[in-house]
Amino acid sequence: MFRYLVSINEALGQVLPNVGVIDCVEEVDLQDAVGRVLAKDVEAPFDVPPFDRAAVDGYAVRAEDTFGSSRTNPIRLPVRGFSRPGSPFNGTVGPGEAVEIATGAPLPPGTNAVVPYEDTRRDGDHVEVYRPVSVYGNVSRAGEDLRKGETILARGTRLKPWDVAVFASVGYTSLPVRCPPRVGLVATGNEVVEPGEPLGEGQVYNSTRVMVESMIRELGGRPKYYGIWPDDEEKLVGVITHALEENDMVITTGGVSVGKVDHTVRAVQSLRPDVFVHGVAVRPGRPNSVALVRGKPIVMLSGFPVAALVGFEVFARPILLAMLGAADEPRPTVRGRLTRRIAKPVNVKAFVRVRVYRHGDEVMVEPLALTGSGVLSTLSRGNGLLIVPEDLEGYDEGDIVEVQLLRPPA
Amino acid sequence: MFRYLVSINEALGQVLPNVGVIDCVEEVDLQDAVGRVLAKDVEAPFDVPPFDRAAVDGYAVRAEDTFGSSRTNPIRLPVRGFSRPGSPFNGTVGPGEAVEIATGAPLPPGTNAVVPYEDTRRDGDHVEVYRPVSVYGNVSRAGEDLRKGETILARGTRLKPWDVAVFASVGYTSLPVRCPPRVGLVATGNEVVEPGEPLGEGQVYNSTRVMVESMIRELGGRPKYYGIWPDDEEKLVGVITHALEENDMVITTGGVSVGKVDHTVRAVQSLRPDVFVHGVAVRPGRPNSVALVRGKPIVMLSGFPVAALVGFEVFARPILLAMLGAADEPRPTVRGRLTRRIAKPVNVKAFVRVRVYRHGDEVMVEPLALTGSGVLSTLSRGNGLLIVPEDLEGYDEGDIVEVQLLRPPA
Repeated sequence: MFRYLVSINEALGQVLPNVGVIDCVEEVDLQDAVGRVLAKDVEAPFDVPPFDRAAVDGYAVRAEDTFGSSRTNPIRLPVRGFSRPGSPFNGTVGPGEAVEIATGAPLPPGTNAVVPYEDTRRDGDHVEVYRPVSVYGNVSRAGEDLRKGETILARGTRLKPWDVAVFASVGYTSLPVRCPPRVGLVATGNEVVEPGEPLGEGQVYNSTRVMVESMIRELGGRPKYYGIWPDDEEKLVGVITHALEENDMVITTGGVSVGKVDHTVRAVQSLRPDVFVHGVAVRPGRPNSVALVRGKPIVMLSGFPVAALVGFEVFARPILLAMLGAADEPRPTVRGRLTRRIAKPVNVKAFVRVRVYRHGDEVMVEPLALTGSGVLSTLSRGNGLLIVPEDLEGYDEGDIVEVQLLRPPA
Repeated sequence: MFRYLVSINEALGQVLPNVGVIDCVEEVDLQDAVGRVLAKDVEAPFDVPPFDRAAVDGYAVRAEDTFGSSRTNPIRLPVRGFSRPGSPFNGTVGPGEAVEIATGAPLPPGTNAVVPYEDTRRDGDHVEVYRPVSVYGNVSRAGEDLRKGETILARGTRLKPWDVAVFASVGYTSLPVRCPPRVGLVATGNEVVEPGEPLGEGQVYNSTRVMVESMIRELGGRPKYYGIWPDDEEKLVGVITHALEENDMVITTGGVSVGKVDHTVRAVQSLRPDVFVHGVAVRPGRPNSVALVRGKPIVMLSGFPVAALVGFEVFARPILLAMLGAADEPRPTVRGRLTRRIAKPVNVKAFVRVRVYRHGDEVMVEPLALTGSGVLSTLSRGNGLLIVPEDLEGYDEGDIVEVQLLRPPA
């Protein structure tokens, strides 16, 4: 068994200081920028709005002309034209004159406020104003939204759909984003075959590949798959070395237990790692391991999908985020009442799949399995994840716990 | 102005009952299935595990042979071989015999339990067992995880990376998912030009296109863009009719205000809609409108990105989810203290962009702007969204509110 299990934070503390932000920036079209991480601060190239414009539909006036107006004592102004977005009023508006105006249209020179329709009555070529408007009332001032040169979003921001709307508004067609970290993925195990092949006696399908690849992609990395390799130390040394050369990081699956078959661990050890952590105080996923070889991280995941998922979350995710210079996204959470006791050793962090459901007014949290890294069905049956920190021995039945919500509650 | 503003729920209540799940299923490779919505219940094609297998590294034995063993009185068994995943032990194990076994390997016939290494000591060809093990102790029984024929995930489930791991485990290489709803996107406005073009006087860039397209894609729809159309009712009728024929749904942007330029509204009205809701009690985004023409929804969004975003959330999102037969994903939320009062008319739902930040131990929520659908910078400056329900007049400074978290807090 593992003689000494380091905590996740200790393990990361040895690896992360050696992981830098990927030194590669690419310019991508706006429509491809959503989900990517900004590599530079991006500034407003001009004021927004670029000109004073109407914030409501109504009449552009000189505010001073409306002072003292009321419903019983309206002020009557001749209407000189119409200012529309895209077809502004040409000409200057004199004192005591008005121009009809649509939201977003430029304020005609000579005016400094917009009276909304509801405070007016149209009478042929004239408009009657029933209420005074203040100077720049109902006007969006040039630059009030964004000032030319102001940083719109800072490097390290993961771009959302509405962010690209802001950049489109100021005319950007592309943005500088961080290149995707390249991640080599090496599957190992004599017993492992790809889905689609016939399953021989004692064989299992490679279930971690597609999961790990899609999690890499979701974070913004670019996976490259090197296939399934037998439990042969020499061959593993070869493919891992090759994958390290072609990528910024390598993830292996399988061969990390401490039985007689942990070929992956021995292969990585023979690469003379600068950092080598075999096994962490996490449950499930104790065999998950991490190393640093010639400055590049190698994350060794369990071959069992539940354990591999935990290993990806605790090691691969923070490393990929560090390479992108980005913070992790917030996760949906919910508080609920535990239906069953959860016990775990102190100093071990536990990732417990749970089923969150409503019972009357209450949210209930049912733990699915604490151990058993091969308990596959907890992935499909669970809709939540309860993380029990190192310093606790667990939770009691009836405790109120906060759970990450992975799907809508049942 | 709008004479009568219907609530979002009233408007949806007229449209959603007429929106069915897309009648189209496609089979996609596992690696393309993440994020898609299952179109059918998918069952386990065989038991998982397919055979009784070791849950730990150790020695496969007959449990009965270990009864009564202790550290002071170990039981000594001859070791007949090794069962590894992929290379199981060939042969039957007799009473009083053991086989060394690695996690995941098939339990050799004749044995019914595994003694973990830590309860044994190896001595040449023999092993000493220090602790009794119960029948099927440390064994994963065939079918205990998933039973053949059991539904792994039900139709309507949006697939996560770990879901495909479960399907890969049982040999699936592809899955039946709902075809993407086709969404025609028509931009309107004489003043609107595409980013990249020079900006004339009074013109604005089309900022909603890329935002709306990427939100459609994120939900699992397939956007088709029809370009920017002038404020010309006849031309709009033509392009909207064309887009309706080619898609399951149409989204327009612009031309929905109630000034003199609401050409989109008039164009859709002339298509003789079965349902037509012009303007909703939401802030910002009051002009957002929705219609049903020949059974297909048309969502008319404001041309202002902030208002369009709200309109997409309240109309396009529920319609697209209904077409996919899927529930909405849970959102990250946080509770914090409001730094400033928010006032709004009762019976109006308000979507307030906020900045969430930590101040000492407290989470603070700063409202950025309640009105001003054109206030673009609230999108980039905000990291949260506070939804104020219809029945409230707002919140007071210092109130504790729950906020959707759109980015990590500052």
